[in-house]
Amino acid sequence: MTTDEKKETKIKIVKRSEDFSRWYLDVITAADLADYAPVKGCMVIKPYGYAIWENIQKVLDSMFKATGHKNAYFPVFIPESFLRREAEHVEGFSPELAVVTHAGGKKLEENLVVRPTSETIIYSSFAKWIHSWRDLPLLINQWCNVVRWEMRPRLFLRTTEFLWQEGHTAHTTHEEAQEEVARMLEIYRNFVENYLAIPAIVGKKSESEKFAGALETSTIEGLMQDKKALQCGTSHDLGQNFAKVFGVKFLNKDGNEQYVWQTSWGMSTRLIGALIMVHGDDKGIIVPPRIAPTCIAIVPIWKSNEEKVKTIGVTKKLAKTISNFSFVIDDRDLRPAWRYYEWERKGVPIRVEVGPRDVENNQAVLVRRDTGEKIMISQDEFAARITEMFESIQQNLYDRAKQFRDENTRDVKSWDEFQKVVEHQGGFIRAEWCGLAECEAEIKEITKATVRCIPFEKDEKQNEKHGICVHCGKTSRYRVLFAQAY
Amino acid sequence: MTTDEKKETKIKIVKRSEDFSRWYLDVITAADLADYAPVKGCMVIKPYGYAIWENIQKVLDSMFKATGHKNAYFPVFIPESFLRREAEHVEGFSPELAVVTHAGGKKLEENLVVRPTSETIIYSSFAKWIHSWRDLPLLINQWCNVVRWEMRPRLFLRTTEFLWQEGHTAHTTHEEAQEEVARMLEIYRNFVENYLAIPAIVGKKSESEKFAGALETSTIEGLMQDKKALQCGTSHDLGQNFAKVFGVKFLNKDGNEQYVWQTSWGMSTRLIGALIMVHGDDKGIIVPPRIAPTCIAIVPIWKSNEEKVKTIGVTKKLAKTISNFSFVIDDRDLRPAWRYYEWERKGVPIRVEVGPRDVENNQAVLVRRDTGEKIMISQDEFAARITEMFESIQQNLYDRAKQFRDENTRDVKSWDEFQKVVEHQGGFIRAEWCGLAECEAEIKEITKATVRCIPFEKDEKQNEKHGICVHCGKTSRYRVLFAQAY
Repeated sequence: MTTDEKKETKIKIVKRSEDFSRWYLDVITAADLADYAPVKGCMVIKPYGYAIWENIQKVLDSMFKATGHKNAYFPVFIPESFLRREAEHVEGFSPELAVVTHAGGKKLEENLVVRPTSETIIYSSFAKWIHSWRDLPLLINQWCNVVRWEMRPRLFLRTTEFLWQEGHTAHTTHEEAQEEVARMLEIYRNFVENYLAIPAIVGKKSESEKFAGALETSTIEGLMQDKKALQCGTSHDLGQNFAKVFGVKFLNKDGNEQYVWQTSWGMSTRLIGALIMVHGDDKGIIVPPRIAPTCIAIVPIWKSNEEKVKTIGVTKKLAKTISNFSFVIDDRDLRPAWRYYEWERKGVPIRVEVGPRDVENNQAVLVRRDTGEKIMISQDEFAARITEMFESIQQNLYDRAKQFRDENTRDVKSWDEFQKVVEHQGGFIRAEWCGLAECEAEIKEITKATVRCIPFEKDEKQNEKHGICVHCGKTSRYRVLFAQAY
Repeated sequence: MTTDEKKETKIKIVKRSEDFSRWYLDVITAADLADYAPVKGCMVIKPYGYAIWENIQKVLDSMFKATGHKNAYFPVFIPESFLRREAEHVEGFSPELAVVTHAGGKKLEENLVVRPTSETIIYSSFAKWIHSWRDLPLLINQWCNVVRWEMRPRLFLRTTEFLWQEGHTAHTTHEEAQEEVARMLEIYRNFVENYLAIPAIVGKKSESEKFAGALETSTIEGLMQDKKALQCGTSHDLGQNFAKVFGVKFLNKDGNEQYVWQTSWGMSTRLIGALIMVHGDDKGIIVPPRIAPTCIAIVPIWKSNEEKVKTIGVTKKLAKTISNFSFVIDDRDLRPAWRYYEWERKGVPIRVEVGPRDVENNQAVLVRRDTGEKIMISQDEFAARITEMFESIQQNLYDRAKQFRDENTRDVKSWDEFQKVVEHQGGFIRAEWCGLAECEAEIKEITKATVRCIPFEKDEKQNEKHGICVHCGKTSRYRVLFAQAY
């Protein structure tokens, strides 16, 4: 047995139905995505996991640039005093901060915080950059690492350090800032649905769940296969809160000095956790084709050396016809089953098998990772069938995730039913809510379910006449989605 | 006067001949590349500066990937004990460390260092990843921020935090590792010469200048216009130093356990400082065409509204023929001279002017940023002449930097002459050197000049019979390049 083969035998993936948390870690290991670092709560993103992140970055970055945003880079360190200036902001982030107290061999005069998010340090620059209405809107994005000290780390979902992008913009009016918040939320929705194949619910966060320092937070929420919700991205209307404390002012067309209106928005490596938990199965992860570092694994099969030469020759010929896709020809000297298994674990959307008989008959076998379906095709139609299957897998992943989500979204009218659904079924609960923080806190205390969002429903159900709050019985203000969440 | 025009009048650039250090900061401000941050020694990389960095990343990243390297990501924090394991390494980096002592509201049991470089944290992972010779070579790269506490910060050149890439590889034999060191140095040379248009000297560092923990450091050295040298990138042969302390072992083909042989190599945002100081002139920076975020600024000129419509129409038509280049049509309502001046400051390689008479005569004016030369061309030959000028500017920037460097590289035989050249002329001094650290230290003490490298000269001058050391008079071992350096 070769070392590679020995390794194969060690990889075990527990069933989702048996232990979802364990399954999650198992498939991450099996796909070689990431590992815990020797630093508590931190992760090492391995090459395959990082390649997924690079693809996420590439797509999002081009969407940001297409809407006029420019990238820049601000310091990883923030003076402690900066964070303190916005009261809600510091209160929200204080428990999670990592603090540099010594540097260059000396105790620092002022402690530096490793950025948990960069509103304060960026807006201190904005105050220098912005003078007149001509400088607005200012549309900036930053790709970087951030640190939020994490007591219960979980790879990709909650790690002390993670990678993300944070957009920061300044506008002349509140209306314009609100449009930006909506524009970026729509970009996020588009990305999550059309690239990650995750059906998204977009909505507004409740007061207690909004970003520390924002007027309002909009969110993208997804449902994982364990029926817990996951926040996939947020877009914040910051109002003039930060502008006032950092003095970000501009002269308007009438020559009057005014504070800017600001937004910030972010998505992170957490998205990799989302795609694992939405699409993965008991064989491993499944990467949606449009975001997959490797879309197609082409596996030649042989017994004799003569067959080896022939089958590899055919795979090379086929590969040339699909150069617009990312593919790999896996001609390693390993048993075919072991090679298949590796690409399955890694969630590569399409596998192509070419054996000696396929060479003779001018055919090839395509295997879909999402359904396991195998089809025999003529080599002449290879590129066309690959293209077709690529689109079909992308669509099917979305459709089945949406079906799952819809099946696990329940309208609940009574508190009794609410508790039963949380306990026995999970998923999203659509219910009336009074909007009061104390009531929300009680619901969370009892059921661990939180208000995921007040959905921006297209049918304007929010404007319908509301009944009474599902928990406290007071007059309801919103129809919201509750769920237990990551 | 509009606000933009008011801003124009404020921008001043001191002459290089008057005060080079001040000129350097002036052109950075004038081109809107970067700014000091409110955190001591840190910088804010503004959108235009960051766009140059993105182009540097894009080219280097594709070169790394083409040679089989994969990107990954490792934690920003390193346990203090990890750094201590390699004695030379910790000694080299100790004075520059930023230390996290508190996190999550508590004092940490073990202090965490913000990575100054990632050998230790990465090789602790390599020890887990590598088992057999089949896992080798392991070729990893990381794009990230690093922190080295800086007492005398200088934008792009020496900042407490900077952005870089660090490559880390492991091999079965020392020979293979040495080949990798040379391969990456050659990639760096190719990039520096053919993209940044900076003539490079490649060579070996002396013992005292090598990377802390390496067997040998190879370097790329450039000469700035103030006749100081700048290290542009380094590639290290780490031998088995780190492998031994982190237990990075593999089973060879005979089933024996051995330590791997390692390399690391890096380039940083310092390269932006290099291109400013090599190419800039008294009007501002000059960005080499192959790395320029904006290659061509097309400026329509009008007086009447009718002329405005016509000239903008022509610039749009022309722009369509050069869609393979990055260009901008600058039709802002500002006086032409002010628009010209902005693109000049920002070092955009080619400016195109289209006025009402040019519209009538089917012509346009091209202005080269490097020489200031203006040529009148027919609109029909626009794309061809742009392509030609693009290549010509790229080549001219290199040629004139090389001429400058060659004119400022002097063979020096005596210590007396050495001191005079350092004091009155600067530049590279080619001289015989004994190779002893004490002698090197004395030379530095007296003249501030250091051994930049022992060049890998193609004519194998290093194998010639050597004379005596230029300083101490002992038998010479090397023919080296000395210079004052950043």
